[in-house]
Amino acid sequence: MYFRPEILAMAGYVPGEQPQAGKFIKLNTNENPYPPPSGIKQAIDECLTRGLQRYPDPMANAFRTRAAEIFDLPSKDWIMAGNGSDDILTICTRALVGAGDLLRLPYPSYILYRSLAEIQGARWEEIDFHADWTLPETFAKPADGLKLVFLPNPNSPTGTMISRETILEIADALPCPLLVDEAYVDFASFSCIDLPKQNEKILVSRTLSKSFGLAGLRFGYVVGQPHMIEQLIKVKDSYNCDSLSIAAATAAIHDQAWLAENRRKVIATREKLAAGLAQLGFEVIPSEANFVWCTHPSKPAKPIYEALKNAKILIRYMNYPRFGDGLRISVGTDDQNDALLSLLASLVQA
Amino acid sequence: MYFRPEILAMAGYVPGEQPQAGKFIKLNTNENPYPPPSGIKQAIDECLTRGLQRYPDPMANAFRTRAAEIFDLPSKDWIMAGNGSDDILTICTRALVGAGDLLRLPYPSYILYRSLAEIQGARWEEIDFHADWTLPETFAKPADGLKLVFLPNPNSPTGTMISRETILEIADALPCPLLVDEAYVDFASFSCIDLPKQNEKILVSRTLSKSFGLAGLRFGYVVGQPHMIEQLIKVKDSYNCDSLSIAAATAAIHDQAWLAENRRKVIATREKLAAGLAQLGFEVIPSEANFVWCTHPSKPAKPIYEALKNAKILIRYMNYPRFGDGLRISVGTDDQNDALLSLLASLVQA
Repeated sequence: MYFRPEILAMAGYVPGEQPQAGKFIKLNTNENPYPPPSGIKQAIDECLTRGLQRYPDPMANAFRTRAAEIFDLPSKDWIMAGNGSDDILTICTRALVGAGDLLRLPYPSYILYRSLAEIQGARWEEIDFHADWTLPETFAKPADGLKLVFLPNPNSPTGTMISRETILEIADALPCPLLVDEAYVDFASFSCIDLPKQNEKILVSRTLSKSFGLAGLRFGYVVGQPHMIEQLIKVKDSYNCDSLSIAAATAAIHDQAWLAENRRKVIATREKLAAGLAQLGFEVIPSEANFVWCTHPSKPAKPIYEALKNAKILIRYMNYPRFGDGLRISVGTDDQNDALLSLLASLVQA
Repeated sequence: MYFRPEILAMAGYVPGEQPQAGKFIKLNTNENPYPPPSGIKQAIDECLTRGLQRYPDPMANAFRTRAAEIFDLPSKDWIMAGNGSDDILTICTRALVGAGDLLRLPYPSYILYRSLAEIQGARWEEIDFHADWTLPETFAKPADGLKLVFLPNPNSPTGTMISRETILEIADALPCPLLVDEAYVDFASFSCIDLPKQNEKILVSRTLSKSFGLAGLRFGYVVGQPHMIEQLIKVKDSYNCDSLSIAAATAAIHDQAWLAENRRKVIATREKLAAGLAQLGFEVIPSEANFVWCTHPSKPAKPIYEALKNAKILIRYMNYPRFGDGLRISVGTDDQNDALLSLLASLVQA
């Protein structure tokens, strides 16, 4: 049947529902409820005026230069841009992990990592979090064929974090690169974006999808030492970022004041959400991301997800073998939050 | 050094120069000299008004549905969209060609195909065109581990084509899929977009970069039987096309009248370019694309390329072992064409 056996065997990663019609309160894929910085429209208009006939800058240097300044990196050569951070994760896996090699990830975590290993014909190994959401020492242990370790920080679906000190220790102990996936870091209390300076094995990926309200634009990037970035560039498609997204991403990251205010609003609503859920009897893991993970001691999760969906509120029901099922709820606006909590109240108190 | 040996060993594909500053007459990467259909600006504005906070439709169904109507395909399930046709070529290679497998391509042709094989740790085999730009029978022969055959049609750098009948024969004889890369087909006298209906092994890829003046947007697609498309979908990034490009591509492909007029203009200028070059003593291969390949019996190609570049006219100098070097010149506007030919006249008649 023509295709590689690994491809035929795999189910394929299924992203969260993206209803294209109908008015949903959409709290299932960790999008930002607020519109992106206003400078984006102007950047896109200017780009349209220049025209789209020409290929984009293959390296997105306008973005790299601005981002290197903001993150106090020695030069733009510490950054590679991608078509969303999915593109970054794909490129890193293709560059580092060959057929039969091993990719490591924590569990429970972002399911896409496993699909990326499967596409490569590679093995993957999940290391369970401890009950307190720290990682066992085995996470940093060398292993036969181990070529890449993914660590989402904050993690999904839990919103928990591993400390900078521990990340440096893990990278020191590992025989291979450690990709710290910071998709949600702008809602957290610290970041690791400077750590590649201390250890060449550390790569840090970011996206503008969550914190900049630009999920529809597809723009992400990875920070690493220049000799690491140089190898990754060989694997990316020549023109992996389009002219509009480069212009918009450059305008977005420039607006750090917008980011600070957006972060403040999302975190404030997250704390209200967590408190409201707790009041309804949910067990809520303290989150450093723009979502919370919760379970209820007596009410099963799936019927709650379904009842909400019927009422046009979309959250994520997830079921992890060995870990259990629960609800991952993205942080919306205060109004969306109130609507959710009042419906949940009627469901769990019924 | 952490990376897969194949990645460390490879040089990486180097795309044509994309000067980000300076006023060049840019005839080196086969872009369209005319602005894209005007409906694109409105589609992008509407998309911005809806907002970019949400993830795009993972399957770009608006585009697929419209394209299936235009190409008289049974349903949208015959189409998968990509982030430029480079994304399509990458996805097909990853889905079909494993480490150690064999990928076949004609020679001389698009150099990127070899890089895609290299990244997979696969072997590649080049089959030389005959002097009349037909292909030898070996191109259709089964071979050990052969998993994918690329055939650009029209070919680059020559602009020549293989007939529909021959393509059906090649696909019949091959043990694996044949990807007909139709990046330039809108400037040609025929296409193969309906042939996947006749043979499941035929896949046809397209891009909006050339014929729709949208190289900066990154949008391509592949046509194949639904059970083939289904496997390819497993390999693509979930959100490989952004909201703006889906909206713009859907508006673009809808405007077939614009396409017909653009095609007419580009072909008219191509014929003037070919005639002008012949008058200056160049040997020009009759082209069905938006570029021509030419050589001069007495004037070496590289100094011509360099002299043009100094005068801010950028064309492509290419040197193919066993085949020789020459100049690939994209078709610009009539004014650009006149500027090029008058400068070339001073160079070759000096």
